[in-house]
Formats: sequence, structure tokens, C-alpha cells
Amino acid sequence: MRIVITGGAGFLGSRLTRALLAAGGAAGGLPPFEGIVSVDLAPSPVGDPRVASLVGDIADPGFAARAVGAGTSGVFHLAAVLSGQSEEDFDLGLRVNLDGTRALLEAARALPEAPRFVFASSVAVFGGALPAVVPETMAVMPASSYGAQKAMGELLVNDYARKGFVDGRVCRLPTIVVRPGKPNSAASSFASGIIREPLAGLPSNLPVPMDTRLWVSSPDAVVDNLVHAMALEGARLGAWRTLNLPGLCVTPAEMLDSLGRVGGPAARALVTREPEPRITGIVCSWPGDFEVGRMLGLGFRRDADFDAVARQYRDEFGR
Amino acid sequence: MRIVITGGAGFLGSRLTRALLAAGGAAGGLPPFEGIVSVDLAPSPVGDPRVASLVGDIADPGFAARAVGAGTSGVFHLAAVLSGQSEEDFDLGLRVNLDGTRALLEAARALPEAPRFVFASSVAVFGGALPAVVPETMAVMPASSYGAQKAMGELLVNDYARKGFVDGRVCRLPTIVVRPGKPNSAASSFASGIIREPLAGLPSNLPVPMDTRLWVSSPDAVVDNLVHAMALEGARLGAWRTLNLPGLCVTPAEMLDSLGRVGGPAARALVTREPEPRITGIVCSWPGDFEVGRMLGLGFRRDADFDAVARQYRDEFGR
Repeated sequence: MRIVITGGAGFLGSRLTRALLAAGGAAGGLPPFEGIVSVDLAPSPVGDPRVASLVGDIADPGFAARAVGAGTSGVFHLAAVLSGQSEEDFDLGLRVNLDGTRALLEAARALPEAPRFVFASSVAVFGGALPAVVPETMAVMPASSYGAQKAMGELLVNDYARKGFVDGRVCRLPTIVVRPGKPNSAASSFASGIIREPLAGLPSNLPVPMDTRLWVSSPDAVVDNLVHAMALEGARLGAWRTLNLPGLCVTPAEMLDSLGRVGGPAARALVTREPEPRITGIVCSWPGDFEVGRMLGLGFRRDADFDAVARQYRDEFGR
Repeated sequence: MRIVITGGAGFLGSRLTRALLAAGGAAGGLPPFEGIVSVDLAPSPVGDPRVASLVGDIADPGFAARAVGAGTSGVFHLAAVLSGQSEEDFDLGLRVNLDGTRALLEAARALPEAPRFVFASSVAVFGGALPAVVPETMAVMPASSYGAQKAMGELLVNDYARKGFVDGRVCRLPTIVVRPGKPNSAASSFASGIIREPLAGLPSNLPVPMDTRLWVSSPDAVVDNLVHAMALEGARLGAWRTLNLPGLCVTPAEMLDSLGRVGGPAARALVTREPEPRITGIVCSWPGDFEVGRMLGLGFRRDADFDAVARQYRDEFGR
């Protein structure tokens, strides 16, 4: 048996791969697996004999069928065209984020036993006027193509789950902070940049207002929660399988205070504040806080505070 | 210029066709049109030189492009695989209800000027635990494939509208009562049947509990509201284009009381009560009442009461 991770070559996918390898075969409720298949446009960076890489386009049904082939006990579907790029290339976003998700679900449906299927969605499904704290019953009114495509994917996963074609779980991920490496095409890329670059002695720009409420999570908390989402018994989740993963509600002002404490005043001074309306428009359409009592009761976790998030990055990746 | 009606050969489509012909070229805010193109698997039953019929499958992109061709000023997209059939033939439902909607939107996007695009959705997008009166901000948690596919179509229309590819309007239709003719594959078919068949001296079965709350509308009110949805200025609708059309909240008990008043006790006595769990499961997942204050303020209308609905049918179709 094997677990498939789409987007396996990415930051989150490779981190998840390592976490699953560390957890081992059938730890803590996970479906049994001997190996992991990384599915992405590039091979997995994880050098481990238990990891195989399949390189290709998930929106190609033939490739999706090979990716989610015989012996698949679980799928983590993380691959996506991100928010900035989906807004600029509508057709590519629809193709990968909707058609790709559907192709993977069809491949899973063809298996003799319905695999667990964890779909990484996003708070970007929300838009319009939102209450200060978003309940589980809040309508999605996406203000970006990425959000619309993720919301359609959520509906597909739920309906495939209802029909018994997969054992589905939809995780709406907070914005992941701090991502290492370079800025990416997500509209939220700055949220990592304003911590990561100053800690490396580089300038970084904050394109949104200081009091923008962001819903964020460290990479470690997100990986733990994705693994937990796959390990949970379906009966505990109920019929509707869309979960708002816990996060922290923080503003850039609070994040920069943490930066000052964790990286010092010199790091803090490297952050500039040039507004970018395109980024602000997308990011400010996302909610800043969620009701997560049921999620915490189900065993999902969140970071203690933003200092802990900044420290996690500094200790692992900082100079 | 022309207006395209998918599902134009159906009951609602042909009724809408006649209403538009009666309204004339550019009445009451409608986009200008000289003719109507009925797009369906059968030709339009409306014999009028201003009506052309295109027979084919909207999920075929080539056909969709011909259907929404040059000179299209507006599209009413009513064609769908209904709730009962979508539940039994998952692939057909997904193909017509999702792929068909997308193909029409792509055809509309290719036009030099974005046409108005009215998409007929349904209260079947709702499911799970619902408040007694559903607000505009209520999350959709469809409990049927039809509902899931309509909900995905809503997201597509909204995103195509946000991008400026169409001037979109999504109308969530109440259950239309009383439909003439034969029972159809909708799970809600009984709601017409328990009025229509007894008025024709025929028995009819009520498969759901007497106190099930149903959200219904007469054909006339729905047609008026669809025309109004196309005629309204987009600026009045705001950014999010999904509208819960007004309806009446009634129970089968109340409907049968109306039947007794409008058709007499002999008609009322023709209704049997054999429960059908499959139908009950789908229909009871739908909400029974909605907040419609904003809709009424925008000029949408609803029937006075259910006696008026039953009388409308009896006077037009009854023997």
C-alpha cells in the first residue's frame, strides 16, 4: 500500500513526506502504507528509498490514473496553481485546480477500495462581507479565481465522499508562515517574506495595511493537521467533510513585533511599507479568524503564538 | 441580437420563451433581442417565427459555441439533468450540469461583448443542519449530486462574472409547483403530482411527511423572476451574483388543504401516503424558508399564497 502526495516536490509536500516517513507504516490511525508516491512537475527532493516520484500533469486523466494507481490507500492532494497565478492565468488555474482535482478523484474512484483523500483547500474560498469570526456555516463567496476553483474542488470531494467513491476530507489551510526559499506566486507570499527576508538581512515589503487580520499557521502545525485529517476516523467527522483548520489570527503589526523580538530591531527595520492594491484586494477578501472549537475538539492543533511561529523558522532556516 | 434559452424545449423554457416574446425587443431593461434560440435535446414547442431551435448536447463545446454564437445578448441557462437522475447517473449529471455550464460560459466568454447570463440553480445546493429561515450567507452543503453540481455551477458563473467574461446572475429556484404533464426525474416531482393528478381525477402519492417544509413557487412567479433577473442592472446586484429567489414556505398538509378548497374533497381523497425514503432523504435535506427581504426590495416577487398557486394551475391546465 502507498500514500500519494500531489505537490510532493513542493515545500509543504516534501515536509509532509518526511513527517509520514517518520510516523511510519500505520501510525496513529493512518491507512497502511509501505511507500510514498510524490506526484508533481518535478521529482521529490526527499532522498529515501520509500519515496518514488512521478513527474507529470495531474489534469491529464491518464497521468492521474497512473498517479493514483493500484495499492493507493491514501491521497494528499496539495498540488495547485496558487492564488496570484490563477488570477493572471484563468485557464491554467481552472485546468489544474478543478480538472486536476476531478481527474485524481476519478482515479481514486476506480480503485477497488475507496482511499482516504485529503484535499488542501484554502481560506481564499471566502470573500465579501464576513463576520469578525467565521463560523462553519459561512457561505463561500470567493473573490479570486483560486478561491472559486478551490471551492469547486471542495464540493467535488464532498460529493465523491458522499457517494462512497473516496473517504474524503477537505482541509481549509490557513496562510502558511514562514515558508523558506523564494517568494512564490501566492498573493499571501509577503506574509512569509516580511519575516524570512529580514532574518536573512534582506529588505522585504509589506504590501497590505498594518492592521490586516491574517489567518496563519506554521508549517509544522499544518503538516501535523494534514496527517491528523487523514488519520481521523470518518465517523468522527460526520457527513460534511470540509474543515476549517485551526490557525492564529494576527496582523502584520503583531508579526513585525514578533520579528523584532525574535530577529532584533535591525531585522525589523528592513521591512518597507509600499501598498500594492492588487495584493491588498485579494488578501483583504480573506477572513482573519474562525470558530475552531469543533476542530480543536477533534484533535487538530494550532501554534501557541506568533513568536513561536517566527522562532520555528529562525531555528530551522535562519542564519 | 438574440437571447439563448437552454432547456428551451422544457416546460419552464418554453414558458419563458413565450413570456419574452410577449415582453418584446428590449422591454423593461432586457438586453435587446429580435429572436430567441431554444437550445435543447428537442426542438422548442413554441411555434413563432422569432424562435429558432438548436438541438444538441450543451456539454459538447462545439455545440455550445454554436448555441451561444455571435449576436447573443443574453443567455438563460435552464438545461440540467434533474435531481433524481443526477443521483442515479453520477457521470451524466456531472457532464451536463458542470461541463455543460462551463462550455456555455466559455462560449459566452468568446463573444465580443459579455452577455447577460442567468443561471438557474436550486435550493438543492443546501443540505445538512439548516436554520429555520436560511440567510443569504448560509453555507451550501449539498446532500445530492444535483445540488453539488449546481453549487459548482454557481461558483463558475460568479467567477466568470467577476472576471467580466459574462454579466452573470445566479437564481436559486424554489421547487416549481404545479408543473403540468407527467412526473419527471426530479426528487420533488411529487410536489406537483399531489395537486396535478387529483385535479385530473387520478391518484397520486405523497412520499414525504405531511409536515415537510417545502420552498415553492408557481411557474408564473418563477418566469417573472427569471426575466427580472436578466433585466436588472448589474450594479444593483453587487459583486456576488447568487440570488435566493422568493418563494412560499408550505407543507404538504397545507398544500392538500388548498387542493381540497380548489379541487374539492374528491380530489383531496385521491392522495395516498406511502413513504419513499430515497425521495424523503433528498427533499428533507432542502431548506423550507429563506430570508428574501433584499430580493423583494430588488423587485422579485412571490405568489400570494398556495391557493393562488393551485388555482393558477387549475385555471390553465385543469379539466
